[in-house]
Amino acid sequence: MNLTGKMLIGGQAVAGSREAVQAIDPATGKLLEPAYPGGTGEQVEQACALAWAAFDRYRETSLAVRAHFLETIADEIEALGDELVERAVVESGLPRARIQGERSRTCGQLRTFARTVRAGEWLDVRVDTAQPERQLLPRADLRQRHVPLGPVAVFGASNFPLAFSVAGGDTASALAAGCPVIVKAHGAHPGTSELVGHAVARAVAKCELPEGVFSLLFGSGREVGIALVSDPRIKAVGFTGSRSGGIALCQAAQARPEPIPVYAEMSSINPVFLFPAALQARAEALAQGFVASLTQGAGQFCTNPGLVIALQGPDLDRFNAAAADAVQRSSAQTMLTPGIFDAYQTGVGALASHARPVAAGLSTEGPNQCQPRLFMTTARDFLANSALQTEVFGAASLIVQCANGEEIRQVAEHLEGQLTATLHLDDGDLQAARALLPTLERKAGRLLVNGWPTGVEVCDAMVHGGPFPATSDARSTSVGTAAIQRFLRPVCYQGFPDSLLPAALRHGNPLQLRRLLDGQREA
Amino acid sequence: MNLTGKMLIGGQAVAGSREAVQAIDPATGKLLEPAYPGGTGEQVEQACALAWAAFDRYRETSLAVRAHFLETIADEIEALGDELVERAVVESGLPRARIQGERSRTCGQLRTFARTVRAGEWLDVRVDTAQPERQLLPRADLRQRHVPLGPVAVFGASNFPLAFSVAGGDTASALAAGCPVIVKAHGAHPGTSELVGHAVARAVAKCELPEGVFSLLFGSGREVGIALVSDPRIKAVGFTGSRSGGIALCQAAQARPEPIPVYAEMSSINPVFLFPAALQARAEALAQGFVASLTQGAGQFCTNPGLVIALQGPDLDRFNAAAADAVQRSSAQTMLTPGIFDAYQTGVGALASHARPVAAGLSTEGPNQCQPRLFMTTARDFLANSALQTEVFGAASLIVQCANGEEIRQVAEHLEGQLTATLHLDDGDLQAARALLPTLERKAGRLLVNGWPTGVEVCDAMVHGGPFPATSDARSTSVGTAAIQRFLRPVCYQGFPDSLLPAALRHGNPLQLRRLLDGQREA
Repeated sequence: MNLTGKMLIGGQAVAGSREAVQAIDPATGKLLEPAYPGGTGEQVEQACALAWAAFDRYRETSLAVRAHFLETIADEIEALGDELVERAVVESGLPRARIQGERSRTCGQLRTFARTVRAGEWLDVRVDTAQPERQLLPRADLRQRHVPLGPVAVFGASNFPLAFSVAGGDTASALAAGCPVIVKAHGAHPGTSELVGHAVARAVAKCELPEGVFSLLFGSGREVGIALVSDPRIKAVGFTGSRSGGIALCQAAQARPEPIPVYAEMSSINPVFLFPAALQARAEALAQGFVASLTQGAGQFCTNPGLVIALQGPDLDRFNAAAADAVQRSSAQTMLTPGIFDAYQTGVGALASHARPVAAGLSTEGPNQCQPRLFMTTARDFLANSALQTEVFGAASLIVQCANGEEIRQVAEHLEGQLTATLHLDDGDLQAARALLPTLERKAGRLLVNGWPTGVEVCDAMVHGGPFPATSDARSTSVGTAAIQRFLRPVCYQGFPDSLLPAALRHGNPLQLRRLLDGQREA
Repeated sequence: MNLTGKMLIGGQAVAGSREAVQAIDPATGKLLEPAYPGGTGEQVEQACALAWAAFDRYRETSLAVRAHFLETIADEIEALGDELVERAVVESGLPRARIQGERSRTCGQLRTFARTVRAGEWLDVRVDTAQPERQLLPRADLRQRHVPLGPVAVFGASNFPLAFSVAGGDTASALAAGCPVIVKAHGAHPGTSELVGHAVARAVAKCELPEGVFSLLFGSGREVGIALVSDPRIKAVGFTGSRSGGIALCQAAQARPEPIPVYAEMSSINPVFLFPAALQARAEALAQGFVASLTQGAGQFCTNPGLVIALQGPDLDRFNAAAADAVQRSSAQTMLTPGIFDAYQTGVGALASHARPVAAGLSTEGPNQCQPRLFMTTARDFLANSALQTEVFGAASLIVQCANGEEIRQVAEHLEGQLTATLHLDDGDLQAARALLPTLERKAGRLLVNGWPTGVEVCDAMVHGGPFPATSDARSTSVGTAAIQRFLRPVCYQGFPDSLLPAALRHGNPLQLRRLLDGQREA
């Protein structure tokens, strides 16, 4: 299709009239056509009105219809073919294979949520049957299910132009829950966003759903986003991006007459702990794995290993030497946007002023090239200087040398909330690792042993979340099937005649759900 | 035991040194000994430090130990015997039978949470086993469980001196989740609070748990409460009380460097819809039931029916006449505190200035006597005047006469978030009720047919929650076993050796949990 530079308000392609966003090919610095004029306040209103009008009908679609809708979105994205891949590559600077993989992940994610919708466990059906003969007070029939919160505003992320953007994890889980979605596209990949937006809109039409189930807005600056989050018809927000952006959305959501939940995934430096026996056994291999994880995708992952913590000594020296060597041999890679590149340079400069530079990767001509960087500091300096905990988005990491186990514990306790914490250990390290686990469980949403934090599996057990500032809501995950729970609330039905109950709660259990029935889980 | 006027910081009875709270017998207006001097900032700190020190050990107690602890609290409360009942009666002005029933409910609630802890479903264990041979990328072993958030601040409510106070629903569910609890006692019943606090502390000691698992603080004004909510070691808040009090806590929680969740149950007028066929068939019986629910406990329930909505006409006239008659024959009842009585008088005065007074109950000599009151207005006036939606805590209610079904729909859509919405209907009303349900599902946490909203069952299916301003978090319930979920967050363990996994996640499933294993629920 020809890219039009237009938004999607329900099924209608509509041109904005505010300041435009326009993609830049970060590998060349050239502007990419077309420009995408930003939405007006009135257009935000229209999208919200359509979403609100669609909500009551969409949320009562059957499990089968809703699951089929998610699968149809996946089909429509795949049907975009190479055009989508090519546009995403040129807008993001990411390699073609990475974008192809991300497309698979995005469509797989939609299909996984379709399975989750069909299984119906997210309804969390609980039934306490009437006890009319109970002494003192009879008990009425009480039944609980979960219902969707309402229309959700989703903010696309720059670093996953498919998997965490227009039809990414936030959108998939909100649609799965029964919430209409209004996406504020990320300005870095508007063409990719338009293509995917049309795929979603086609799925809405094919499934004969109300058009307001999905809209796609553009806007430079924060105006459209704040207007969306402030609209009374928006009932929840999904966001992946910077700490300042996430906090601004949280504040706007709290300032509403009716505050709403914001799921903002913001900031994490993903500490990696190298335990002594593991370090002694394979310092060089650990360094290889570390640098591979650090430099993957120019380090532009929320789970990039930005901090390494270990006991000082000859084994850490071996690790440091091997890591420095691997970094020095690492190529520069194109970053997603000039803004991200500038922030990386600034962040690396700040690290250099507080910590000792250890190694830098190869440099390249051309714009927006991320040169990997490695720094070192002591536990004492790390504990004294909270600037060393600031996330530097890109392929930069800091090694913290500790004098003893107590310093390691202090560094761990000093950490802000994280998406992940990683432990590299051998059998001889188990006792020390066990002692550190309670701290790490309090700090992070995902703990890894002998792996690397980049690469987030979309599955039932995944937690991509964690205490503030990793996210604004530690009770949630934004990746994996449990992400659906962010957009639901429980409703209890007391004394209802069967004909008035939603299907999930009827006496005959027509959806064959595994209910909690009078305190017992059904087989 | 002799009441001491002291707080409990961990196991230690400690006297505060700030302005004291002192109970008043609301039936006589007399001060009750002793006074309870308020805690200092330093004492709040001490309680938080003890809670924090207890957290890692308490949260890893076995399901059996934690369940036994909850049961021991119930046993210790029962062992307080008549002393507790007598003190609660004199502090609250509530009848003896009501306090005895509330004690049963409180102990039953603790034992219900013990069963919930043992069943272990709250752990929400999910296992995705390793797929080392998977193409493109192997999958690591991934396991998820839920862990407690951390120490919880609980604010006792005035209207349930046992069931929603020191060892009430918030405390029981937080302790069940594995969170230490610091209670800020309600100033209306400090003696009751001290007695129950000692029962909890005895259970902590008997179960050989760290003393910081429980503390009990007193304080006049908001100083102690805000200090608690602002302490970095507090990770969640449970509150039942006024809208202004709840919002103040939410704002304090959001202003922290690390914001935390607040579960505030605040304000609800609990609309009751009378449908035409039901009204025609039994207007007088409905009026009897309504006035009984309205006047129960002097109307001092969060779920008190403060709003009745119906079509104007002869059947509603019958209801109104019968309700007016029943109200006029209703006795005055002692309210919980002089402050609540003053607020009731003010609220009734405000209603009288916006709506037509229909009936008033019998008046009585003596202080703090709640005289039931009934008012009437039209849908047009209700829609035009949001003051008519303000909760009046006590036995006052407003009948809204609607000219047609569209006005009923408009009134329903105009409502703020509610704890409950009630429908009285017969077979002939089913279609009209079905049309209204989508609106009510968006507005309330619990929907009732042909019942009355007062009387909240503690069970699996209960939802005592709802959209703002009914609560600050529509995703939760504060009554029933699902309340435990408020104090939990998911953690994922990737690639862990079995010996490092918590028991709930080990390969052999030693806790025999019904896990979600590779996408399938275990039998």
